[in-house]
Amino acid sequence: METEVFNGLRQEKKEYIDSVIKGFLPMGEEPQSKIYEAMNYSILAGGKRLRPMFMLAAFEMFGGSEKEIIEPFLAAIEMIHTYSLVHDDLPAMDNDEYRRGRKTTHAVFGEALGILAGDALLNYAFETACLAFGKNRHIERIASSMAVLAKKSGIYGMLGGQVVDMEGFLKEARKEQLDYMYRLKTGALLEASLMIGTILAGGTLEEVKKMEQLADNIGLAFQIQDDILDVTSTVEILGKPILSDEKNNKITYVNLLGLEESRRETEKLTREGLSVLKDLGRDSEFLEALLISLIDRKS
Amino acid sequence: METEVFNGLRQEKKEYIDSVIKGFLPMGEEPQSKIYEAMNYSILAGGKRLRPMFMLAAFEMFGGSEKEIIEPFLAAIEMIHTYSLVHDDLPAMDNDEYRRGRKTTHAVFGEALGILAGDALLNYAFETACLAFGKNRHIERIASSMAVLAKKSGIYGMLGGQVVDMEGFLKEARKEQLDYMYRLKTGALLEASLMIGTILAGGTLEEVKKMEQLADNIGLAFQIQDDILDVTSTVEILGKPILSDEKNNKITYVNLLGLEESRRETEKLTREGLSVLKDLGRDSEFLEALLISLIDRKS
Repeated sequence: METEVFNGLRQEKKEYIDSVIKGFLPMGEEPQSKIYEAMNYSILAGGKRLRPMFMLAAFEMFGGSEKEIIEPFLAAIEMIHTYSLVHDDLPAMDNDEYRRGRKTTHAVFGEALGILAGDALLNYAFETACLAFGKNRHIERIASSMAVLAKKSGIYGMLGGQVVDMEGFLKEARKEQLDYMYRLKTGALLEASLMIGTILAGGTLEEVKKMEQLADNIGLAFQIQDDILDVTSTVEILGKPILSDEKNNKITYVNLLGLEESRRETEKLTREGLSVLKDLGRDSEFLEALLISLIDRKS
Repeated sequence: METEVFNGLRQEKKEYIDSVIKGFLPMGEEPQSKIYEAMNYSILAGGKRLRPMFMLAAFEMFGGSEKEIIEPFLAAIEMIHTYSLVHDDLPAMDNDEYRRGRKTTHAVFGEALGILAGDALLNYAFETACLAFGKNRHIERIASSMAVLAKKSGIYGMLGGQVVDMEGFLKEARKEQLDYMYRLKTGALLEASLMIGTILAGGTLEEVKKMEQLADNIGLAFQIQDDILDVTSTVEILGKPILSDEKNNKITYVNLLGLEESRRETEKLTREGLSVLKDLGRDSEFLEALLISLIDRKS
């Protein structure tokens, strides 16, 4: 797919996703209005909407057309991603006052509302996903998607990765352990995205499994690319401090394996992922271009 | 129902619920084992298991018999109740080191794991409830129950109540505002419990609504009773400090309406609730006795 065509499509899909998310945001009056404000502030902080973009791409690739069943899940996965950032930024966790040049939720609303806004986004993600049931169509597919969403977000998925990251488990890490953490922390929600898109479009169990495998590869490649950018990029391009891993004494792919080997690893993972994608025999042009763009990214 | 019979039944049901909850608890090995420990510690801290008890009573009252579809929900509602306590106790919230004479989760595992354990319990509640789908039976009932669970736990339910409580909204509260907060903070999960028990047993929409109304009444009565016990009980009987509301300058039913009026209000709400229950024309002996026991309680 040509770069210009891809960029146009990506922008178009991002705008659609943004409008879907906005449509599901909670609104209300006093006395709970502060929590709606904090939730809205957190989720409208921007970002690439990568997870819903993945989900939508998979849905379209498998011929999904009924927007009303996927839209609640597009919003839900972004809410879960957002809650994890809000809680990660808390003083007791990473203690970040800024994210992408903007004050973090607890820095604006206070720590207590930071905790509650994260809780609210996680809970509201499931509340929103449940709206898909209201259409009374494809109820089994929705039920399976709900189960995938819950599992991949939880202790056997993303949340498990956060615990491993926090536990200082990685102080003496080898490659296998870093892989394990990256696959959970970054991979799990990407897996959920591709799996749910496929399930809701009516993909077979085997197709869902292949998409999971693909997302697992890509999640890991994405995270290694993060480690590479931390040492090779500039503050201007990256939009956040470089060499932060070194300063934080963090074990990364780069300081474990070196820059060259890390690059080789990303390429290998991406190549394998793309081959899984090709084998599925669907029109996967957009998803393919999206995956490549993640690895070629400069920020 | 005779007190002894009721006490026996209640104990029996509590043991059953405890075993169900234990059966769903997560287990696993390094490197995430700390999160399993923290989750287990929180949920096994004891408690009356009131919400699952309500759910089970409603389920049986409407002739529900398939334990495999209600058991995941019995565990899920207790996980949600527990997560709310774990987060409420955090330093940035109520900052409690002890609950029922036992160290709170963050006091034992640290603040970061306190946050993550709460998140994990909330997420795992939905993950557990999704297991009910696995039986491929009554899928519509399970979907409706999931939607009720999410809604009543979230910003339009319990979590909304926590925000109102925290926001200092109640500084100039009148009875209407206190009612509003109590109905959300305590009432919402009781409503979810009775509604889900009824839905899973195949109750009609009208029956579900009546059970919701009943739970709303009882939730409020329960909370007023808490305010009453705070000024009339002793530390020994209550198992926690008395007069804590006065010390915390908290607006309560008692300091707003006086003890006599508060007692009249509890009785009125209970009477109304019991009359709704009677009107349903089911064998509701156990639930009736359970409701009365909540209002007659000394702790």
